[in-house]
Amino acid sequence: MSLIDIQKDVDAWVTQFKVEYFKPLEMIAAMAEELGELSREVNNRYGPRTKKSHQDTADISQEISDMIFALVCLANLHNINLDESWKKKMDKQYGRDSNRFERKDEQNGQ
Amino acid sequence: MSLIDIQKDVDAWVTQFKVEYFKPLEMIAAMAEELGELSREVNNRYGPRTKKSHQDTADISQEISDMIFALVCLANLHNINLDESWKKKMDKQYGRDSNRFERKDEQNGQ
Amino acid sequence: MSLIDIQKDVDAWVTQFKVEYFKPLEMIAAMAEELGELSREVNNRYGPRTKKSHQDTADISQEISDMIFALVCLANLHNINLDESWKKKMDKQYGRDSNRFERKDEQNGQ
Amino acid sequence: MSLIDIQKDVDAWVTQFKVEYFKPLEMIAAMAEELGELSREVNNRYGPRTKKSHQDTADISQEISDMIFALVCLANLHNINLDESWKKKMDKQYGRDSNRFERKDEQNGQ
Repeated sequence: MSLIDIQKDVDAWVTQFKVEYFKPLEMIAAMAEELGELSREVNNRYGPRTKKSHQDTADISQEISDMIFALVCLANLHNINLDESWKKKMDKQYGRDSNRFERKDEQNGQ
Repeated sequence: MSLIDIQKDVDAWVTQFKVEYFKPLEMIAAMAEELGELSREVNNRYGPRTKKSHQDTADISQEISDMIFALVCLANLHNINLDESWKKKMDKQYGRDSNRFERKDEQNGQ
Repeated sequence: MSLIDIQKDVDAWVTQFKVEYFKPLEMIAAMAEELGELSREVNNRYGPRTKKSHQDTADISQEISDMIFALVCLANLHNINLDESWKKKMDKQYGRDSNRFERKDEQNGQ
Repeated sequence: MSLIDIQKDVDAWVTQFKVEYFKPLEMIAAMAEELGELSREVNNRYGPRTKKSHQDTADISQEISDMIFALVCLANLHNINLDESWKKKMDKQYGRDSNRFERKDEQNGQ
């Protein structure tokens, strides 16, 4: 399932109801809520509380998907094609950062 | 390009360098940075500053991809399969919320 | 109660227990949690859910204090004097922004 | 300078201009920006980038004050008295958590 398919999936879900997409600033608040929940799960495993084991990834997995859902809503609202956007990001990242870190194969006299 | 392909894409990018994935709490801080940048772009269009037009979506598009990148890193670090995670989310959402909102087609002829 | 008094108040609370201050990245995750909770309360009043009235400010008030608590912990951990820090900020803000907006009194008879 | 004084300080600054307070959801976006900047500073010291030393706290100090400013704006907008709110929080915290952690003095045979 590509990012575009996911965008259609979300759109089908949202538009089946009489509700509309949240407005952009409402989406930001919703994303802050999602980041808060994801942060709680991460802090519960790696922070001072250590309530859950590192192997128990179910809640982290769910919170990541919740955040992706929110991001896709914001993209849909702006008619952003995330496949194109992702491709552009990776092209830029490969270009921009290609000389910033030492590559692994560079340690062997190449 | 499916979510799994994207996960492999990110992994290829990260592992080509000698650097490692950020640790989970470092990733949360990185996501807070990304959400901050996305919030700035949204506030620049819909908030009191209105520096940019609603039609200019390039920066929003880029910030969404940056956040997806960070989320994928956190997923990879935990060996989370985002295709499965996404499917589970949508199944749950269709089930959980299916009676919460009035459907559009329910207004006609009941 | 000044900011310094608040800092001492928080320190007294934290150090009465055998626990230590959270580490800085743990604090960031905790702040992301707090911002998430504050965002939920604000979205419940001004967003699409409108579950609560604008007059019901108890939860917003509590979440603001929770965030101040977290900020004060981070300040204490770094021996930052928030009274000085605040004074510096306001001085800078008065200086930096003093010519950015039109003042109210400038509309009358200049 | 008490929290109430700080609230008056911020109000004096905001109302000297013709601009108004940001709306609540705009404030949430602004706080997400501030948390992002604070996260960047913390990650620059304790995360993988370690660009700055732990002793260099100037930027952390400033970002904390920026966040306090944003929180105070949101409080002012809702006529929330932060002195009262803070007192209520600490009372609750002393009560709520007083039996949750072992106290330091309990280790000496009491």
